[in-house]
Amino acid sequence: MAGTRFAYVRKFELPDPLLPGTFILLRLDGHSFHRFSDTHGFSKPNDSRALELMDHAARSLMEEYSDIVLGFGESDEYSFLLRKTATLYNRRRSKITSTLCSLFTALYVMHWPAYFPDVPLRYAPSFDARIVLYPSVREIRDYFSWRQADTHINNLYNTAFWALVQQGGKTTKEAHETLRGTVSSQKHEILFSQFGINYNALPSQFRKGSVLVWEKTSIPYNPSNCSASQVLDGENETDANDQEGQEKGASTRITLLHCDIIGDEFWNRRPYILKG
Amino acid sequence: MAGTRFAYVRKFELPDPLLPGTFILLRLDGHSFHRFSDTHGFSKPNDSRALELMDHAARSLMEEYSDIVLGFGESDEYSFLLRKTATLYNRRRSKITSTLCSLFTALYVMHWPAYFPDVPLRYAPSFDARIVLYPSVREIRDYFSWRQADTHINNLYNTAFWALVQQGGKTTKEAHETLRGTVSSQKHEILFSQFGINYNALPSQFRKGSVLVWEKTSIPYNPSNCSASQVLDGENETDANDQEGQEKGASTRITLLHCDIIGDEFWNRRPYILKG
Amino acid sequence: MAGTRFAYVRKFELPDPLLPGTFILLRLDGHSFHRFSDTHGFSKPNDSRALELMDHAARSLMEEYSDIVLGFGESDEYSFLLRKTATLYNRRRSKITSTLCSLFTALYVMHWPAYFPDVPLRYAPSFDARIVLYPSVREIRDYFSWRQADTHINNLYNTAFWALVQQGGKTTKEAHETLRGTVSSQKHEILFSQFGINYNALPSQFRKGSVLVWEKTSIPYNPSNCSASQVLDGENETDANDQEGQEKGASTRITLLHCDIIGDEFWNRRPYILKG
Amino acid sequence: MAGTRFAYVRKFELPDPLLPGTFILLRLDGHSFHRFSDTHGFSKPNDSRALELMDHAARSLMEEYSDIVLGFGESDEYSFLLRKTATLYNRRRSKITSTLCSLFTALYVMHWPAYFPDVPLRYAPSFDARIVLYPSVREIRDYFSWRQADTHINNLYNTAFWALVQQGGKTTKEAHETLRGTVSSQKHEILFSQFGINYNALPSQFRKGSVLVWEKTSIPYNPSNCSASQVLDGENETDANDQEGQEKGASTRITLLHCDIIGDEFWNRRPYILKG
Repeated sequence: MAGTRFAYVRKFELPDPLLPGTFILLRLDGHSFHRFSDTHGFSKPNDSRALELMDHAARSLMEEYSDIVLGFGESDEYSFLLRKTATLYNRRRSKITSTLCSLFTALYVMHWPAYFPDVPLRYAPSFDARIVLYPSVREIRDYFSWRQADTHINNLYNTAFWALVQQGGKTTKEAHETLRGTVSSQKHEILFSQFGINYNALPSQFRKGSVLVWEKTSIPYNPSNCSASQVLDGENETDANDQEGQEKGASTRITLLHCDIIGDEFWNRRPYILKG
Repeated sequence: MAGTRFAYVRKFELPDPLLPGTFILLRLDGHSFHRFSDTHGFSKPNDSRALELMDHAARSLMEEYSDIVLGFGESDEYSFLLRKTATLYNRRRSKITSTLCSLFTALYVMHWPAYFPDVPLRYAPSFDARIVLYPSVREIRDYFSWRQADTHINNLYNTAFWALVQQGGKTTKEAHETLRGTVSSQKHEILFSQFGINYNALPSQFRKGSVLVWEKTSIPYNPSNCSASQVLDGENETDANDQEGQEKGASTRITLLHCDIIGDEFWNRRPYILKG
Repeated sequence: MAGTRFAYVRKFELPDPLLPGTFILLRLDGHSFHRFSDTHGFSKPNDSRALELMDHAARSLMEEYSDIVLGFGESDEYSFLLRKTATLYNRRRSKITSTLCSLFTALYVMHWPAYFPDVPLRYAPSFDARIVLYPSVREIRDYFSWRQADTHINNLYNTAFWALVQQGGKTTKEAHETLRGTVSSQKHEILFSQFGINYNALPSQFRKGSVLVWEKTSIPYNPSNCSASQVLDGENETDANDQEGQEKGASTRITLLHCDIIGDEFWNRRPYILKG
Repeated sequence: MAGTRFAYVRKFELPDPLLPGTFILLRLDGHSFHRFSDTHGFSKPNDSRALELMDHAARSLMEEYSDIVLGFGESDEYSFLLRKTATLYNRRRSKITSTLCSLFTALYVMHWPAYFPDVPLRYAPSFDARIVLYPSVREIRDYFSWRQADTHINNLYNTAFWALVQQGGKTTKEAHETLRGTVSSQKHEILFSQFGINYNALPSQFRKGSVLVWEKTSIPYNPSNCSASQVLDGENETDANDQEGQEKGASTRITLLHCDIIGDEFWNRRPYILKG
């Protein structure tokens, strides 16, 4: 066959299996999204449309890949946890990384018009992705705590920063200088005393990030624990038929939460996430 | 800081640099494109719209990443050669693999309506990507020969197969049986004697695949060597100012060819591709 | 400096850190020890001198590298478990693999004359080594069970095989044929009925392999669980000062056992092994 | 079988093949040889016994592994070049690294008494090893230039340093201070004016390091290029049958040189080294 004498080049494709028995954490980050958000007029400090588009893409990715048991998003990044027993694509690193990143990207672009009906894409956005392996539950808990703490820190800073600029009339340089060296309580104070903003009353979507998790729909959420719960209905699923599905034992679905995932409550209620 | 005690989880992110001094070959493949092409009504055996959308995405990717010195596409796959001295993203494997795959995907989805104006996307397409390293010019030449030989083999088979089905009224099972064990010349013969098709007169776009290469626009192509040459003009570039640019030595641009890349001629004319 | 323009070649040395938080299992295997044992007249089916030389090298290796918390040896192989929090050589794979393998080899050759006083080394022995990472305690338990089960299976076969050859006058070919397809109980029966050998009464050194573990010397062993216990005293340590050291809490030392490590008892008594 | 349910632990052994088509460079370094050389009374700045023991181990390693086409040693390190087409152990990184490092170590310990008849080993020496891949001839040339330049730099410094200490009566601290910031010519001058030492007249063994190469014995060496040439005869080979072997084309043997390998001459005479 014509191709035979060239086929030896396949031998340069080396295997890249992930260590079995470890949790697979895939994190996607928007590539140069500072520029992308400026070009497309994202609201500051947060753009709900952009966040919800991210959530939509993440949710659809999870519907396609059932090995993903948890998603957490903030700003232009999303983290996905795959169960440690996952055998997706024989645990090949590049295959998983690229395919899931590609699908997320495709979903983001495909659904863009639904979230930004008046803002045509000026150029194609892209995301990078990496896989990190974690051997134990402790590290997974700390990983998600790390990301949610990051959400809080960034959002508090950005909220104060943009209040100073948009409402306080400062330049961005002045705003950075005002905030330099301030601790958390000082930023709260600036927001409250200068702009009448009670930070803790801002939407949990901004303060807590987005949590996507498979769950039975009958689980009641403690409003103080999880102040906002928005469900993007999956395909072929309505609130009406939830109870019915429940009875048939088939009604787990992906639910979007904006709740605390640093404490134990979230995890204690959902032992299946870290089960394996 | 709130995030500090969790930040140790970053230590699980291990480095993945690619060996320096090697050619980086990135190959993208459509994920489950058999189903995707059926769902979206691609013409058989080849759909020019789909091929040209792939070419468009590939071309735009190359415009964004100047380390890519050559692209070769066929069907739902595309191979990109990065120069061996490339330092893109410090040669981090996952970063390069995911970012380029993501951008390609975004471009594919974003430009879909221009190539399939009457076919809305039913679901999001995705691609996988892998990087293969090659130490020397010989292997790079053989890699691209391997892909182009594959293009030929597949296209000849598919052309005969769909002729038997579409014009010959056979079932797909019968068509496979008719072709089983046939050599190249027999497939030519079936096409010619039964359907009046001169395989070698079919568009080189189908027979040779797509070659994307940076080049000075004045290079004359030998029509017998490279029978079809279609140029998708890059941004801010018109035929009118080519000659001018040429004189300033600044007028290289990405050119789409459907020519032989197994023989030496293509490479001898463009020594800069493999230079380093 | 003269070397400066060449120093770029160091950039080709890529990092190879092991995933943090995982148990590191290093296994050494004798290289072509079938030939080596023939050349040097090892007794069949087991040579106590050779096994004890292995134990000696393993014990000295553990004294040098305190991250090794357990060793298990059989025949010409030895497995070493490093605690999952080990930071030895920054967890660089090649550095750990090569250095520990090298020291083990040096110890084996250096102490050869003490175990084989009448058998000069005819040529240099060598070992290969590999590191395998395990995320959890379950896998470590199963790893060591796997090796000890292997010890049992091989030793029972070899004991029966060499009895047939040495005492039964069979050729090696005939002996293999006799044993082909036999299950464990049949091999026991052959040994007992034909040669009067009660397999379970053979030395546990042969049946159980060698276990090296750090422990307080006062731990009493259940003789039915761990039928043979031989202590190679470490440097500067005598039985006399054990009790004294014990009281000061400083008297842990490496102890050699030939006991069961498949059941829970061994591990329950020594929770520190898998602690981290 | 008893071992079956544990055998899954083998799945954690991941493949580690080296990229095909690349030169494999294996470098061994003595582990803590500063202490080892002190303990065993090595002469300063160079100990011929120790260097020749290294050469002996290296030579025997090359006799065992014919994929090694070149060795270069200095001080307590040795570099080995494996041909780029080598398929040794299916190019598995850990297998090659550990086995060759192990055999080198065993040879070093086994032959120690022949080079240090009056100095018993006080403890076991060890070496670490790493593999570095190089894609092209240029990098291999530069790698060996790097090591030989390093030999020169270190030896000039050490020669001056120990002359100041041993003959000049300085403390080691004073000697370091005297040499701090000096360039090459100043060290030559110190050696010559204060101690009557013509550095360039010192043995090339110390100034050039050790080069081990397979070659036909009839190749004449240019004394100005390669001032010292010592041959350790291989097994079953005498000078007497060289010419005969030569005629049969079978008389290649490993030759020890202390010659320049930075310039082209060494390589031009031996094109087979880098051939592949």
